Formats: sequence, C-alpha cells, structure tokens
Amino acid sequence: MRATVIYGERDIRLEEVPDPILSTGGDAIVRVVAACVCGSDLWPYRGVQPTKEPHRIGHEFVGVVEEIGADVTTIKVGDFVIAPFYDCDNTCINCRNGVSTSCLHGGWWGADDRLGGFADGAQGERVRVPHADGSLVATPSQPTDAQIPGLLTLADVMGTGHHAAVSAGVTPGSTVVVVGDGAVGLCAILAAKRLGASRIVAMSRHASRQVVAREFGATDIVEERGAEGVAKIHEMFDGIGADFVLECVGTKESMEQAVASARPGGMVGYVGVPTGGPIAMQPLFGRNVGINGGVASVRGYIEELLPEVLSGAINPGRVFDLELPLADVAEAYAAMDERRAIKVLLRP
Amino acid sequence: MRATVIYGERDIRLEEVPDPILSTGGDAIVRVVAACVCGSDLWPYRGVQPTKEPHRIGHEFVGVVEEIGADVTTIKVGDFVIAPFYDCDNTCINCRNGVSTSCLHGGWWGADDRLGGFADGAQGERVRVPHADGSLVATPSQPTDAQIPGLLTLADVMGTGHHAAVSAGVTPGSTVVVVGDGAVGLCAILAAKRLGASRIVAMSRHASRQVVAREFGATDIVEERGAEGVAKIHEMFDGIGADFVLECVGTKESMEQAVASARPGGMVGYVGVPTGGPIAMQPLFGRNVGINGGVASVRGYIEELLPEVLSGAINPGRVFDLELPLADVAEAYAAMDERRAIKVLLRP
Repeated sequence: MRATVIYGERDIRLEEVPDPILSTGGDAIVRVVAACVCGSDLWPYRGVQPTKEPHRIGHEFVGVVEEIGADVTTIKVGDFVIAPFYDCDNTCINCRNGVSTSCLHGGWWGADDRLGGFADGAQGERVRVPHADGSLVATPSQPTDAQIPGLLTLADVMGTGHHAAVSAGVTPGSTVVVVGDGAVGLCAILAAKRLGASRIVAMSRHASRQVVAREFGATDIVEERGAEGVAKIHEMFDGIGADFVLECVGTKESMEQAVASARPGGMVGYVGVPTGGPIAMQPLFGRNVGINGGVASVRGYIEELLPEVLSGAINPGRVFDLELPLADVAEAYAAMDERRAIKVLLRP
Repeated sequence: MRATVIYGERDIRLEEVPDPILSTGGDAIVRVVAACVCGSDLWPYRGVQPTKEPHRIGHEFVGVVEEIGADVTTIKVGDFVIAPFYDCDNTCINCRNGVSTSCLHGGWWGADDRLGGFADGAQGERVRVPHADGSLVATPSQPTDAQIPGLLTLADVMGTGHHAAVSAGVTPGSTVVVVGDGAVGLCAILAAKRLGASRIVAMSRHASRQVVAREFGATDIVEERGAEGVAKIHEMFDGIGADFVLECVGTKESMEQAVASARPGGMVGYVGVPTGGPIAMQPLFGRNVGINGGVASVRGYIEELLPEVLSGAINPGRVFDLELPLADVAEAYAAMDERRAIKVLLRP
C-alpha cells in the first residue's frame, strides 16, 4: 500500500510500504477514507523537531473496517469508524478517569505499539489499529460524503478544541478568549459556544480564519498580539480580562498572552503542544490564574460530539479549506506551512 | 505604641512607633489581641528576600475595634474582628469574583494603602485598617481566650490551606496529597478532610508535625521527598498518583514533587509563594495535570469557616505550638526559623 513518510525538513514522500497485518487478536485493519495534516505535523516538517530517521507520519483518520482480530467484540467488518489520534484500551484506570491519552496500554500512530506490533501512520491507505474495541468509534450508519470532514475532526481538532474548553471549565454565560486561529483554535471557539459562553473573542489576524471564527461563534475579533492584544482584552472585559482563555498554539509568547488575558481567578485551558520552555509562576500566583489542559483525551469526547456532527448542529468540518488526493500529500504540507490552507483533507 | 520592624537578615526589633490615626473615613483602628509570625515572614528574615530599608512587618491579627471612620457602617467600636492578611473593599469586581487579593482598591499591611495613608504591620499593638467594612469580619460575640488561636488562623493559614483545597477542586471521596507540613500545609489537610477527601497523605518528616497532621485528618504519612517520595505516592495510588495535590511550600522542588505526585488528569492546588523560578510545561501537558491557586483570597472564606471554628468542629488553632509576648517577637522568629515551633502566637 501507499503511505506517507517524512525524511527530514520539508521532505515528505508517499511511498510503497508493506500492507498492515493483524497481530494481537484485539486489533483491526482500517481502510482510510479520509486523513489530514495536523498543525503538530508541521513541527518536524519545519525542522523544529529534527527527524533522525525516516518514519511514517499522520495521526488523524476515518475509514472502513476491513479485518478484525479474533478478540474484537464491538467493532465489525464494514463499520465506518473514527479513530482518535492515539490508540487506547478505554478500560484502564486512566481511561476510566477520562485521560485516555495516558492509557496504560495505549500508543501512538506511526510507532510500535506496546504489544510489539507496528501501528501505521494515518496518512496512508490502511492502518492497523491496536485495541480496536477501545480506540474506534463506529458511526450508526455509513455517513454521507458531506459528513466525512466533520467526522474527521473528531479524530483530533474538534476534540482538542473541546478539551481546551472543558479543561478551562467554560460555563454558560462566561467570557472566553481564544488564542490561536488554526483548526484547533477555531474548534475551541465552536466548543466554547456549544458550552454556552456569552462572549467569545478570537485573536486572529487572518481574514479567512476570521470568517470561520465568526461562523463558529466568535463575537469579537482582536488582531493585536502580545502586550497590545492583552491591553485590548482587558479593555473589553472590565479592565481585568476574560473568565477563560483557551490557548491553542503552544509557544512561550502565546501562553504568556493567554495567562495575561485571563482575569484574576480565571483559568487558561491549553492544548497547544508546549514548545516554548518553562512558564513563569509569578503571573499565575499573583492573580490566581490557573492553567489546565494537555494532550487532549479526544477518544472520550467522540460519543458526545458525534450526534451533533451527524445532525449538522455543529459543523467543525468547515476547518478543511483544501482537499487533495493522498498522492499530493507533499503539497498538503506546503499549503499548511505557507498558511495557504487552514487544514488539508487527504483522500487515498 | 510598640510595633515590629525588620532591619535585615535575622534582625527583628520591637520599636516605639507613632500611634495610627484614622484618615479616610472608611478605616478603623484595631487594638491587636493576637498576632503571629508567618512562614512567608521568614523569607526576608532569612535574607532570601533582601530588606532594603527597615520596615514594619506582620500581616495576621485579630483584635478589638477602638475607633471607626465616619463612613464605616458594618463594623462597630468594641467588635472583636478578624482581619485577612490584606485589606480589600469586598465590593469591586475582583472581590465579587472571589479574588479579593486582587481587590482593585486593596493593599497590604505594613505599606501605604492606595488612598495614601499608612496601614500598620500586624505584629504591633494597633493597626489602621483601610476599608474596614470590606476587610474586617466581626465575631457574633466576644470570643473566649481558647478560641483566639483558631480565629487567628482565619487571617491567613486556615484560609490559605482551604484555598489550596478549593483551587485544586477537592471532592468528596477523593485522594489528596499535601506537600509541606508547615501551618498552611497542616491546615490544607484539615481543609481536605472537611471537603470530604477519603484518603489524605501528609508528606512530612517532623514527628511533632505528623501528630498534628494525623489530628487534622491525614490517613497516611510519607517521609520521603523528591523522586523517592513521588514513587511512594504512585505506589499508594494505583501506580498513577493522587487525584489532588496541595502544594504549600513554594520551592521549585516542592512544586515538581507536587506535579509528579498527581495522577494523569489530576490537579495541583498551590499556595506556596513561588520562590523557585519557572515551571516546566511538559510534565503538566503530557499527563494533563493542571495547576491552580495563588495568593489566597482568605477574606471570602471567613464567613464559611468561622462557625466551625467557634463551635470547635475544626480546631486549626492547634498549629500554634508556642505563645510569646510581643516583646519576645525576635525569639518568635528564631523559633520558627529553627523549626522549634510550627507557628508562634504573639500577645501584645
């Protein structure tokens, strides 16, 4: 089959690789119907995270189950399934605590799972899914083509934006600022709106993203960044800042901006992969601003969000503004790197 | 009157100073009945925070109102009052949000208040209290002598321990680890017990403090620190850590120990004044451990905790294991510095 391999900075190739095979009894082979490129894939693409050896890449996909292991009980051949951006058994204590990204037996796509087999990266034609019963969620029926993008966001970005909002503790009637206008930031706006926030500020300076932000529920746009952006937020909210800030970038600057934008006693929900080193305690301590979040346990959110995606009540698939065949995966990376696209959907 | 002045490292003197006078209309003069030395007073005492110029010190007191300004309406001459470790109007937006330590008009003892007058440090005979209506809470009647220590803890340490537990979000039936066995850490145990935690681990290596920890509700004691202490905590709690960790020290080591002791998805409530520089994000992000807390808004907790102190349902005054006349204030500092006392009560 064909799958995407990263060789180094700006070197993405689609290659022939061995077909995946069942190996553990609890796994499944899924034919990928749609995959995509994540903002976090850009870190190795840009060389920020060095690529020591060529390896498979991709971690978001939906597809159809082609084979199942002998021990799989809830997933059937032919099911249309959503996979989270990791695998998990969904039964261990961390999964039961709602933190399936810390599953005691889980793993990551494009790496050996803990049972010894390889789990393919998602930007390819097929994926072996360890813990199929735990990881995969089947839709009640085969989705329409128009539903695919929205379902694909449940693999990562919509669940991750939701995690930012849940981690912050967004409440009905509250005020929310979202730092970051990538796909996750935009989904965080949608999540905050869904949880009842009365005013949602998108910090964005890209016209095309501002349009989606407004569609998703942003009531205000702030284009300024850093101290200027913070001053604007304070001005908008009683001179003190917003109740909740959702940080969806991960740099030192974005985190500092998020903390300073929260009111005393406010909470920052953050999901941006931290790339900026340690964070100063005094700005948190002095104003009682908390930070909560991390690598998003999206598996646990799929059942809650799925009906709303299927009914069209929420339309997170809107973050995909470019669709390419898998053969053009290198161009998909380039388009996101150069900000020509918010998020690219790939069809094998 | 006599009041305590710090001159520099290990140089504490009781001096004659001018009597306070009313100046704003909203202030009151309180005769100090009991004051005490705080763990945070030891930072300048030990020279960790340099003392540039001699200044008044102390921020915890209870006493009797001797005079009130013309605009004071809820506090009367003769009232026995508890003062939080700061003054606040209790009406501004931050106070209404429950973060009275960020009061828009408040200030700190031993400094000029924002209205221009001086507010005395608390380790003296009298204190001018700006925003008397907002800051002071009167007891329903004159307390007995035995009730004084408990009431004094509401000025800081009991409210601060409670803030750690509330900031973490301690729930009934949860597991809690408390890092720090000073007066605040001990009060955090009491607060966690009061909020219904089912298992509470005190991390303490001092026999006398372990006794109080047990009295306050600790079910387990862990003497190990650092990686060894963390390993012990993981071992006790399903190999993953505790639901909530209350950090009551403020060093880099104690904060790291607290974060590592929390289970994935757990929360650290912290009230130790941060003295250890910035905190690494990756251990928080990777395991979804949140941190929440800060300078404790104890004013807002007094009404809730006061009835239980008066009834004897909780006995936080137990943290005072040495009582001295104000004249011996230098010895009070030395006893705490040398860990001969958990906390020293001073009587003018």
